Amino acid sequence: MKVVVVVGGVGGARFLVGLKSLLAGSEHEITAVVNTGDDVWMHGLRITPDLDTCMYTLGGGIDAERGWGRAGESWVVKEELAAYGADPEWFGLGDRDIATHLVRTRMLNAGYPLSAVVEALCHRWQPGVRLLPMSDDRVETHVVVEDDGGRRAIHFQEWWVKHRAKLPALSFASVGAEKARPAPGVLDAIAEADAVVLAPSNPVVSVGTVLAVPGIRDALRKTSAGVVGLSPIIGGKPLRGMADACLSAIGVETSAEAVGRLYGSRRMSEGGVLDAWLVHSGDRCDVPGVAVRAVPLLMSSPEATAEMARAALDLAGADVD
Amino acid sequence: MKVVVVVGGVGGARFLVGLKSLLAGSEHEITAVVNTGDDVWMHGLRITPDLDTCMYTLGGGIDAERGWGRAGESWVVKEELAAYGADPEWFGLGDRDIATHLVRTRMLNAGYPLSAVVEALCHRWQPGVRLLPMSDDRVETHVVVEDDGGRRAIHFQEWWVKHRAKLPALSFASVGAEKARPAPGVLDAIAEADAVVLAPSNPVVSVGTVLAVPGIRDALRKTSAGVVGLSPIIGGKPLRGMADACLSAIGVETSAEAVGRLYGSRRMSEGGVLDAWLVHSGDRCDVPGVAVRAVPLLMSSPEATAEMARAALDLAGADVD
Repeated sequence: MKVVVVVGGVGGARFLVGLKSLLAGSEHEITAVVNTGDDVWMHGLRITPDLDTCMYTLGGGIDAERGWGRAGESWVVKEELAAYGADPEWFGLGDRDIATHLVRTRMLNAGYPLSAVVEALCHRWQPGVRLLPMSDDRVETHVVVEDDGGRRAIHFQEWWVKHRAKLPALSFASVGAEKARPAPGVLDAIAEADAVVLAPSNPVVSVGTVLAVPGIRDALRKTSAGVVGLSPIIGGKPLRGMADACLSAIGVETSAEAVGRLYGSRRMSEGGVLDAWLVHSGDRCDVPGVAVRAVPLLMSSPEATAEMARAALDLAGADVD
Repeated sequence: MKVVVVVGGVGGARFLVGLKSLLAGSEHEITAVVNTGDDVWMHGLRITPDLDTCMYTLGGGIDAERGWGRAGESWVVKEELAAYGADPEWFGLGDRDIATHLVRTRMLNAGYPLSAVVEALCHRWQPGVRLLPMSDDRVETHVVVEDDGGRRAIHFQEWWVKHRAKLPALSFASVGAEKARPAPGVLDAIAEADAVVLAPSNPVVSVGTVLAVPGIRDALRKTSAGVVGLSPIIGGKPLRGMADACLSAIGVETSAEAVGRLYGSRRMSEGGVLDAWLVHSGDRCDVPGVAVRAVPLLMSSPEATAEMARAALDLAGADVD
């Protein structure tokens, strides 16, 4: 079975663990199309947070409690950078993590595309899932904020990490998206999939950013596979992260139904990508042209997450057993 | 009093500490012209070993026992790079040190010259000595070695650190030296000095490399200050490092006299730079046209080193008190 999953960081990575565990007994190929809109240059290093979160989580290197970064991390370089007064000081650059960034930056500066870098890094981590950046081209999410009466655009990381999404966002700009091309393998994987899943990741700055890469939305609309989304909103609140602040900025209510409608029906809405939509047990939801089912979506354990994945594949019409 | 010192790494840095302590009570300006021929790119980071050794030593951050790198250093990034199989694994890249390299690399990539980078880094370290790279241009010492019957040129660091200078060196090439220009301030400092000192650093790959930057040798020959060298060879052996292997490669005997003659007399030999030459007590030495004096040159303590500096300034005709 070939499954493509569109993912962001922590939530997407955890979903992939559940899916991988579900399919462990059978022949399968999981391809994750990973958001790179959060990517950023910090201290001269190219940092790809969502790709790393997926790689570390699937490869057993993640700090499971924090959800991002390396287990057993130390922070010597960060302290030293602060002693030099090197900006920014608010980004969590751990020592173990920095080695990954050094390898990546060196390869990128030598001319390798990001997809080749990810493949090289995965030789070590063996994630068991093919991780593809959504694009090898530079796409960066910026946030238009109002501050001291004036408007300015800041990098998504500055808004997310430094301001904890508390600075009201007026809009998002996906810088570079309009000219970006899907990374090698992305469109083929979607076309050849038995099922496509939109992970319960941030619908605006993770899944939304992947959908903004020209060609990906069309591929999702055209694939013969069923396309199923999992709601990241449970009981009107994001399960984790600050998706509510992102949804507000684009004028969408923080509800499973509103996100389902944002993604839209492949059959009935222009640009829509869903055949089916999984919401959390008890959430009421109607999305025209989309089959809705309610199951537990808490990802409280790999087993619970595997059951979510089973429900998603089932809704997509892909037979697990 | 204005003193210019031509230095390499460990030995030069220790000499500077002694000189600084000697002049602490009086108005003075010490300018170190530092070898950058050992500089190298490693893991995408620009590393300047001699400048860092001087900066850390004078600024109180050095690992005093090892002589290079930071006190209290940790090696997490290095271990992680090795886990990725990232070459080279033989270079001692400590976590604290890496922060320095990140700041430097970022500034260089942003277009700042190395001299401006050094100045910025020294805001933190306050070395009390003006550290100038010999040049802002890229000059790198390469070593021609014979290996498995074939000749090849390797970077100095590979020869020095990986092979511990045990691979016989046929010759040295100072790549980029012929087109390099002295860094801003170097020639003026030499011209305006009251005394110029060649530290007891490696005469081939440290002091010799500085002298290979067009304009520096001439400036030393023309300055009205006295120029005094201190022998790094004591009793026919280098005090530290592997200067003997370097001297052999250029066909010079490992003796205080041979090194003194290599530098040569300003008055009597073509291209010579010395007025005076300090050798270790008991070493016999005759250098035509150069005043030779023997004093203890062991740098066994800052006080002993200060006495060496006093003897050097005295020989240069500069009055300390």
